[in-house]
Amino acid sequence: MAATNGTAETPEWARDPETQVLREERDGVLLLTLNRPAKLNAWNPVMEKRLFDLMAAADDDPAVRVIVVTGAGRGFCAGADMDALASVESDTFEHGARPLSFPSTLRKPVIAAINGPVAGVGLVVALFADLRFAAEDAKFTTAFSRLGLIAEYGIAWQLPRLVGTSRALDLLLSARVVPGAEAERMGLVDRALPAAQVLDAALEYARTLSATCSPASMAAIKGQVHRALEASLDAATAEADALMPPVFGTPDFAEGIASYRQKRPPRFSGLPPRS
Amino acid sequence: MAATNGTAETPEWARDPETQVLREERDGVLLLTLNRPAKLNAWNPVMEKRLFDLMAAADDDPAVRVIVVTGAGRGFCAGADMDALASVESDTFEHGARPLSFPSTLRKPVIAAINGPVAGVGLVVALFADLRFAAEDAKFTTAFSRLGLIAEYGIAWQLPRLVGTSRALDLLLSARVVPGAEAERMGLVDRALPAAQVLDAALEYARTLSATCSPASMAAIKGQVHRALEASLDAATAEADALMPPVFGTPDFAEGIASYRQKRPPRFSGLPPRS
Amino acid sequence: MAATNGTAETPEWARDPETQVLREERDGVLLLTLNRPAKLNAWNPVMEKRLFDLMAAADDDPAVRVIVVTGAGRGFCAGADMDALASVESDTFEHGARPLSFPSTLRKPVIAAINGPVAGVGLVVALFADLRFAAEDAKFTTAFSRLGLIAEYGIAWQLPRLVGTSRALDLLLSARVVPGAEAERMGLVDRALPAAQVLDAALEYARTLSATCSPASMAAIKGQVHRALEASLDAATAEADALMPPVFGTPDFAEGIASYRQKRPPRFSGLPPRS
Repeated sequence: MAATNGTAETPEWARDPETQVLREERDGVLLLTLNRPAKLNAWNPVMEKRLFDLMAAADDDPAVRVIVVTGAGRGFCAGADMDALASVESDTFEHGARPLSFPSTLRKPVIAAINGPVAGVGLVVALFADLRFAAEDAKFTTAFSRLGLIAEYGIAWQLPRLVGTSRALDLLLSARVVPGAEAERMGLVDRALPAAQVLDAALEYARTLSATCSPASMAAIKGQVHRALEASLDAATAEADALMPPVFGTPDFAEGIASYRQKRPPRFSGLPPRS
Repeated sequence: MAATNGTAETPEWARDPETQVLREERDGVLLLTLNRPAKLNAWNPVMEKRLFDLMAAADDDPAVRVIVVTGAGRGFCAGADMDALASVESDTFEHGARPLSFPSTLRKPVIAAINGPVAGVGLVVALFADLRFAAEDAKFTTAFSRLGLIAEYGIAWQLPRLVGTSRALDLLLSARVVPGAEAERMGLVDRALPAAQVLDAALEYARTLSATCSPASMAAIKGQVHRALEASLDAATAEADALMPPVFGTPDFAEGIASYRQKRPPRFSGLPPRS
Repeated sequence: MAATNGTAETPEWARDPETQVLREERDGVLLLTLNRPAKLNAWNPVMEKRLFDLMAAADDDPAVRVIVVTGAGRGFCAGADMDALASVESDTFEHGARPLSFPSTLRKPVIAAINGPVAGVGLVVALFADLRFAAEDAKFTTAFSRLGLIAEYGIAWQLPRLVGTSRALDLLLSARVVPGAEAERMGLVDRALPAAQVLDAALEYARTLSATCSPASMAAIKGQVHRALEASLDAATAEADALMPPVFGTPDFAEGIASYRQKRPPRFSGLPPRS
């Protein structure tokens, strides 16, 4: 999508890409914060490109082992920025070069810390993270059917695989607002917590992954799970059987066994760049 | 299946198709009631044809936006009518022209209001609705394994996608009786309620869909979800990307945005007939 | 995998295959007990072959209708025997002739009674049973990522289909330890109970299957569900439609209907050998 119309003043949503998503790295965990709090972090093509560029760079940075995404202010992401949407000509519409499921193609775990309201495309982004921590009172809604829209960007595929067909249809057909606590009971989020604890809990979980789990293992496992969703059991088993023998010769396997036997924390290697 | 044998008196189950399923329409919601209460609404080919004919007509009727199915009397559907089953020659067996998953091919949401016992083919019918409201004390059973039967009509496909592989095997292998409250915890029903509130709750949910959700959106979304169950993520995403641009030019999208901005209920268009 | 190196003394884990898994049969239920309690029943190729041989024989024995697997002592299976693993040359690694999903290919229900800790390959074995009963305080862990390993033997395929994508990623990426009670809430086990009641509850469930459910029905249903996980709804429906007519001519169907009408327990036939 063209971010700007060359003949007009740059609209607010297309300005200052670098402030639209903030980055902060510590202990192997990269925290990415959607940062348009005055607009409940409404989604736009510039924010999307910035977020995914940062994720792509992190995936190739050995120092980063886990990625956490949250929202600045009182919300996670209120959906598409209506102004950005309004400026899009229907016949020229296209989203970015990467699909919204891009985070699921990364080699590193991506955890969403849903601090507040999440709607529409914001929910799609949250659902393509690997795990979700959420505020008990955060409001979830697919939004689409109340706006005359469709099930956008692959959510029709992802949602039934998270919560089953029936709950997916409930959420998508009705666009009803579900609080975080109910979202947890439906399996839509992995853990619901008081709002003030959500980010800390997600970061703590991420730090534990970073400190105790082999980055090479996590990369292999994440890919295996995503591929297995579209593969036969025989194919998934054959893939596992092919991946296993080389693993026995790796430093991470030796370290895993040694640290287990010595009852000490492991020291696994960072993941080298993809190529 | 031939509903009657031309040389014999018409059996009870094959009489009066029009009274076997009742219809009542209000506020865009069509209520269909299985109506053989003396037989716990036992399923037979005449009832099946009548129900599906009414559903097909409703799908092409712009005045109908949502369909609710319930049972007359104290049950939802006790399974196949044993008399109808006994009159079927095994070598001539065939069910109707439409599969029992027919409701999932409609463009309009179908909600089952399970007021009481549901078994065998009755459960299959309930599971191919999009959502299920049920009485807390309604008894659910697949029934097949205790009758020497198989997993009938596609339930072996549908059930694991509603509740996961393990719970599906539990319900199908054992044919154990599960009350509505447990059915809700398993994800077999979306909401369990005191029996007296089930139909009202389902109708209220249906009226909310009718009043606040775009029929065109619901039709698109329902189709997307069902297709995505058998598609790759890439294919589902490509479908969403193709469906989206035309939507921006529709009256429903304009009305969705306008009503959202004006904080008023939307007035969406009814769905025109299929062709 | 070669169980022994011909030039060395037979290692402990490769001795006495017949004591590594015990068998006990009563009321149509075969109880198989992993029996290396001093090693928390750590998995090795000899135990694997013994367990699967016993299962294969039971599948062809008309007297056996249901199989229950449990662990001797305080655990179910702590994962791979480290000594067996250490003796495996990475370039010669291969697991047995049968995949670990072998139990899901049997015609008879397999129920895991998880009496205590279950980890790594032990968890894979438990997950390829049809149902799981578990001690509330049994510790569950995938283990792989903390040992520098991958998602082994098809667990990347099976786990999302039991608990959804997100919980599968949580368990596999983090290898965190989950108690049986939480495992039940996640759908990882079907029933969590005080440890002392787990085996009795699993046996009671198995005896009910044996006494009240048609072995031919259970065989058909188990196959249908597993095939349907990889099939389209149309294909699964066509399979059900093809399986149904012959069923109406079977003694089990006649007995199912007769026992139902006479309100007495059914007497179904045992399943003949596969041929």
